Amino acid sequence: MYTFDKILSLINTEIKKLNWSRQPIGLYEPIGYVLSLGGKRIRPAIMLMAYNLYADDVISVIKPALGLEVFHNFTLLHDDIMDRADMRRGQMTVHKKWNDNTAILSGDVMQIEAYKLIAETPKKHLKEVLDLFSKTAAEICEGQQLDMEFETRTNVSTDEYIEMIRLKTAVLMAAGAKIGAILGGGNDEDASNLYDFGKAIGLVFQLKDDLLDVYGNEQNFGKKIGGDILCNKKTFLLIHALKKSERKNAEELNYWLNNNDENLGDKKIKVVTEIYNRLNIREACEEKMNYYYRKALDNLDKVQVPKAKKSELQKLAENLMHRID
Amino acid sequence: MYTFDKILSLINTEIKKLNWSRQPIGLYEPIGYVLSLGGKRIRPAIMLMAYNLYADDVISVIKPALGLEVFHNFTLLHDDIMDRADMRRGQMTVHKKWNDNTAILSGDVMQIEAYKLIAETPKKHLKEVLDLFSKTAAEICEGQQLDMEFETRTNVSTDEYIEMIRLKTAVLMAAGAKIGAILGGGNDEDASNLYDFGKAIGLVFQLKDDLLDVYGNEQNFGKKIGGDILCNKKTFLLIHALKKSERKNAEELNYWLNNNDENLGDKKIKVVTEIYNRLNIREACEEKMNYYYRKALDNLDKVQVPKAKKSELQKLAENLMHRID
Repeated sequence: MYTFDKILSLINTEIKKLNWSRQPIGLYEPIGYVLSLGGKRIRPAIMLMAYNLYADDVISVIKPALGLEVFHNFTLLHDDIMDRADMRRGQMTVHKKWNDNTAILSGDVMQIEAYKLIAETPKKHLKEVLDLFSKTAAEICEGQQLDMEFETRTNVSTDEYIEMIRLKTAVLMAAGAKIGAILGGGNDEDASNLYDFGKAIGLVFQLKDDLLDVYGNEQNFGKKIGGDILCNKKTFLLIHALKKSERKNAEELNYWLNNNDENLGDKKIKVVTEIYNRLNIREACEEKMNYYYRKALDNLDKVQVPKAKKSELQKLAENLMHRID
Repeated sequence: MYTFDKILSLINTEIKKLNWSRQPIGLYEPIGYVLSLGGKRIRPAIMLMAYNLYADDVISVIKPALGLEVFHNFTLLHDDIMDRADMRRGQMTVHKKWNDNTAILSGDVMQIEAYKLIAETPKKHLKEVLDLFSKTAAEICEGQQLDMEFETRTNVSTDEYIEMIRLKTAVLMAAGAKIGAILGGGNDEDASNLYDFGKAIGLVFQLKDDLLDVYGNEQNFGKKIGGDILCNKKTFLLIHALKKSERKNAEELNYWLNNNDENLGDKKIKVVTEIYNRLNIREACEEKMNYYYRKALDNLDKVQVPKAKKSELQKLAENLMHRID
């Protein structure tokens, strides 16, 4: 059985082996750049760990696992254009380092390269995996669309928010877990439970991201605390605060949502965080996370393999729940 | 046996049946819009006609044929962002009618929808068709990259130009013809000859496009004559003229390449066309087209099915060669 760390190092070794020194350089170089920036590699890891519940030759399905990671990084590349984000993982984003056209076109070919890797799925399961992957890929675009639509709306509900992050973030983790089960030879029930496990930890993952952006430690988190507050991002925290706030808190929150004076950025972060504190938003978010965390463990419980085999996936869920970066 | 017209009407009927009334509307509506603008539908037509050389149940492979058309239209959608083109087929482009972000994201999901249709290939041939499709799709991105790189270069050779249009335009027609052969049950030699046939008529198609932009009839062509000249597009005509021109012609051509005064647009078109005329550029382009046209017919000749079966593909080649729109 592979530990999470072993799987992670396998993934990173294999990602480095992918060759992007191809012609035309201007098209393929940004792909190598994006993949070299690092990342948690959670999606391929979940897939390989789910596969490892049933089979040992993890390396034999590394290609489709890398396909998930390449696809994920493609979405980051294009999202960064749409969000006009200049930095990603402490480095310049592709559209900033090169330009918009390069980011669009390199992203396009990166999506194709993801499909090429997915197509390396053993033939027996190709059609099933391909269909699940395409369905998931389309859902991720739907999530990004909703996320952008939320920017100009003031009445987003927490349910709508959860649906958006289900699409934008959770389904790829879910699909990863399910693909692992399919390729490993797990039965349909297991595949479905692992899908739900992946979905639930995906939701935990994103809620934790929202939380860390306000309550994280700058050193650990690796980016400036309060970024979401500065750009009025509709996170779980803001949506919940908008719902819970009344009178003075509501007035103050709205005042700062309409105040985008860059010189007052630090003040804005400080005040909005204080409002969150007064409204116990952190606790509400942690409660939501706990709800999905328990759901994840329940689903993992139902998977019909010996408990010991599931310890690594359980640890992963714990780590995502308690991560500080 | 299906005539070209019958196949075309089948394709248009089936394209209309694709349902884009999905949530979120803002994501899927532009796809329906782009596909409703029309187009020649040559790529799926070639595929179905090649298939029809071997098998009669053309409708059974309509889905992957539509996949080629959806993919082609996706590339137009994204190319129009990169080229800042406001009009396409007499209508506003997606990034103009909506905005850049919509065009990027709808394009992304359109590419996924193309893959979903390709995945409807009969299972027996799925892996082979999928690999050929992905290879081709990546090549098309490479072609677009080269095309953009040519914009800032002054020393593009005609060989480089042919390589660029091979990638950007011809390989999708080639792949269409080959996929038709594979699915129909043609042997490897036939599949390879049909690929070369498709590639050659793809080159003819693009060279004709370059020609019509200068020497076409505005009514028939459906867009303003001289558009390529106005934006200094590196077409076969311009590249060949830059190579052949000396002294006064070269001076004059360079003067107008550096003159982008919008008020002098008509003059620019007139003068550059006169230079082309003096240098017999039209004849050089027609000679090149003839070369590939003969190549196409030679390749079709080698395909091991009765001559009568090949008459529709031959007519298609003729039509592309002599088209006026």
